[in-house]
Amino acid sequence: MLEDSKYMRYAIDLAIKGEGWVNPNPMVGAVIVKEDRIIGKGYHEACGKLHAERNALASCIESAKGATLYVTLEPCCHYGRTPPCTDAIIQAGIAKVVIGSNDPNPKVSGKGISILCKAGITVKQGVLKEECDKMNTSFFHYIITGIPYLVMKYAMTADGKIATVTGASQWITGEMARRHVQGLRHKYSSIMVGIGTILKDDPLLTCRLEDGRNPIRIICDSHLRIPLDSQICRTAMEIPTIVAATATDAVKISKLESLGIKVLSVPDKGGMVDLPVLMRKLGKLEIDSILLEGGSILNYSALKAGLVQEVYAYIAPKFFGGEGARTPVGGEGVLLPENCFKFTAPEVSVLDDDLLLRFKFTRGKI
Amino acid sequence: MLEDSKYMRYAIDLAIKGEGWVNPNPMVGAVIVKEDRIIGKGYHEACGKLHAERNALASCIESAKGATLYVTLEPCCHYGRTPPCTDAIIQAGIAKVVIGSNDPNPKVSGKGISILCKAGITVKQGVLKEECDKMNTSFFHYIITGIPYLVMKYAMTADGKIATVTGASQWITGEMARRHVQGLRHKYSSIMVGIGTILKDDPLLTCRLEDGRNPIRIICDSHLRIPLDSQICRTAMEIPTIVAATATDAVKISKLESLGIKVLSVPDKGGMVDLPVLMRKLGKLEIDSILLEGGSILNYSALKAGLVQEVYAYIAPKFFGGEGARTPVGGEGVLLPENCFKFTAPEVSVLDDDLLLRFKFTRGKI
Repeated sequence: MLEDSKYMRYAIDLAIKGEGWVNPNPMVGAVIVKEDRIIGKGYHEACGKLHAERNALASCIESAKGATLYVTLEPCCHYGRTPPCTDAIIQAGIAKVVIGSNDPNPKVSGKGISILCKAGITVKQGVLKEECDKMNTSFFHYIITGIPYLVMKYAMTADGKIATVTGASQWITGEMARRHVQGLRHKYSSIMVGIGTILKDDPLLTCRLEDGRNPIRIICDSHLRIPLDSQICRTAMEIPTIVAATATDAVKISKLESLGIKVLSVPDKGGMVDLPVLMRKLGKLEIDSILLEGGSILNYSALKAGLVQEVYAYIAPKFFGGEGARTPVGGEGVLLPENCFKFTAPEVSVLDDDLLLRFKFTRGKI
Repeated sequence: MLEDSKYMRYAIDLAIKGEGWVNPNPMVGAVIVKEDRIIGKGYHEACGKLHAERNALASCIESAKGATLYVTLEPCCHYGRTPPCTDAIIQAGIAKVVIGSNDPNPKVSGKGISILCKAGITVKQGVLKEECDKMNTSFFHYIITGIPYLVMKYAMTADGKIATVTGASQWITGEMARRHVQGLRHKYSSIMVGIGTILKDDPLLTCRLEDGRNPIRIICDSHLRIPLDSQICRTAMEIPTIVAATATDAVKISKLESLGIKVLSVPDKGGMVDLPVLMRKLGKLEIDSILLEGGSILNYSALKAGLVQEVYAYIAPKFFGGEGARTPVGGEGVLLPENCFKFTAPEVSVLDDDLLLRFKFTRGKI
C-alpha cells in the first residue's frame, strides 16, 4: 500500500509538469516499476504529443515485461489524437496496472480497465484518487459538460474594493500574489475580460512568467467597441484572440479578422452577450478552461448564469473606502441574503502580506 | 525556565477569567509556588475588586514566606482603587517575583520592580512577555494614550458586501461567527454605531452571551435623530448609553437624559461628530476600548482619523453582487492605491464556513 502511494505520488509529480501545456487534455504521469526499481517514467507533455504511458514505456531502461505501471488516470482505449494506450501496455507485457483517477468520460470510463483485465493484467484502482482527481478538476468538468471550467479571479482590499473611487487599481496586492495570478494565466487555457477592462486599461492579458504559456484571450464586447490600435488587436497575430459580440457590423468584423482575431457572434441577453451560449461555443473550440478576470458586471453575469466553478479572491490588508468604489461583483445583485450565490468554505493561502481565498461552487443554497 | 513558563501560563489562564469584567483595568493573574507546589492563586476579577496578587496571597493554604510569586503584570506600587500590591508582597515574605509584562504606564514602569528589589526580593522579568502583553493590548493602548482602543468589526460577503442592494443584511455569516462577535461585545468596554444603524435596524446592541456583560452603547448622532421609542432609548436605564451629538437641542437632550442617556456635546467636523475629540472625551470617562460596529461612513471617518487599531473582518463564502450594495467602508475614500490605510498581514481563524481575518494597524505606508 505504502509503495503504491509512493510511486503514484511520483507519477503525480511528473504529471504536473504538463500543466498549462496539455489542455484540453488532462495532465497524466506514469511510472514503470520492476522489483522495486523505477525502470521507466513519463508524462503527457503537451496536447498532440504522446500520452504518459507511451512516454514511460519508451523510456524503459530494461524490458517492461512483468513490470507494474503506475498511472494517474485510467489508460485510454480509443483512437484520439494518438492510438489507444491499452494496446501499448498489453504489447509491452506489463503485469499490473495501478490507477489513480478513473476516466471521467462516462462513455469511456471502465472500458480501459476492462480491456486490461481481459488481457490478463492485474488492475488496482483508486490509489491517491483524490489527489489525482484534483489535479484535473477543470478537465473533468469540461469532458463531462462540454463547457469550459470557469475560474473567477479578483484582487480586492480588505474592505471589498477592486479600485479606488477614481478607478485606480495598481496595485492592490503585492508582488507574490501578482506572480501567483500569472501562474493561473499559464495554467488555464484562456482568459476572459469585458470590453470595459480593455477600454480602461488597454492590457495585453499575456502570461508574464518566464517559460509561461499565453492564454487564449477572450473579450466580451457586445457592440464591437474594441479599438483597432489596442494592445490586444496589435498582438492578435501572435496570441490567439477571440472577440464575442452581439453586433454584426461586417466592416468592423472583417477588420478584426484581418488582424488575426476570431469574432464569435453570440445572441444578445439583456444588452450583453448571452454567456451560456458563448460558453458552449468556446467548449466546441476545445477551450476547456477560462480565467475570468473581470469587470464587476461580467462577474455578476457569470455568477448569475451558474457558470463560475471556482473563485480565487486575493485579499490585501489595505482599506480604500469610498462609497462608489468598485467591488469585485456588481450588476443588479441579489435582493435578499438567502438568494446569494453560495460557495464552499475557502482554502486559505498566505502570499506575503496578502491572502488567497479559494472558494468552490456548491449546488446547495443556504 | 520550563517551570517558569508553566506557572506563568497558568497565571495567564487565570487572568483571562477577568476578560470583560476588569476594564478599564488590565487582566492579571497570579500564582504562588513553594517547593514546586502551588500554594495560592488568584486573578483580578473585576474593576474595583482586589488585584490578582492580593487574591493569590489571600488564597494561600500555607505561609507564603519564602515562596515565589508568578504574576502576569508588574505589581503596582501606588494607591489606585486599592492599596499598592508591592506592600502586600513584601509583608507576606515572598522571596522571588516572576513577572510577564512590565507596567506600560511610563510614569510607573519599573518602580514596582525597584521597590521589590530594594526589599531584598529576587525579581525575574519577561517570562512569556509576548503572551502577557497580547492579553492586555487594549489596556496598554489606553493607559499610554488616554484614548480608547478602537476595534472595527464587520461581516461581509466574499465580494465585499455588508448588505444586498435592498439593504438586507440578515444574515451574512453563520451562527459560529455571530457568536464570536458576541464575545467581542463582552470583551470590549463599549460598542459604537452611527445613527444610521439605529434608524435602519433599531438594535439593542447588547451582549447575548449567557453570563456576558453588556458593553456601554455609544451612538454617533450629530443631529440627535435617535427616536425616543427606539430599543436603545427604552433600555437606557438598565444599560449605560451615550449619545454623541453636535446638535444642542436642549429639549431633546433633556428628554434623552431623563431616559438615562448621557449626551456628549462634540464639535462638528464635516457634518459629523469630531471623532478624535469624542475619543478623548470617552477616554476621560474611563472607556478603554470600543467595538465599532458601524455604518460604512463612520468606519471611514474612524480610519481616516487614524483611530482604528484593529479590524475584525468576518467573511462568508457568499456573493451578493450589486453595483450599489453597501461595503464595509464608504465615505469619500482615498483617491490613489498608495494613499490606502495599510494594516498588517491578517491572522486567520476558521469559524465553520466563515473566516475571521484580524488586521492590526501599522504606522508605515506601503
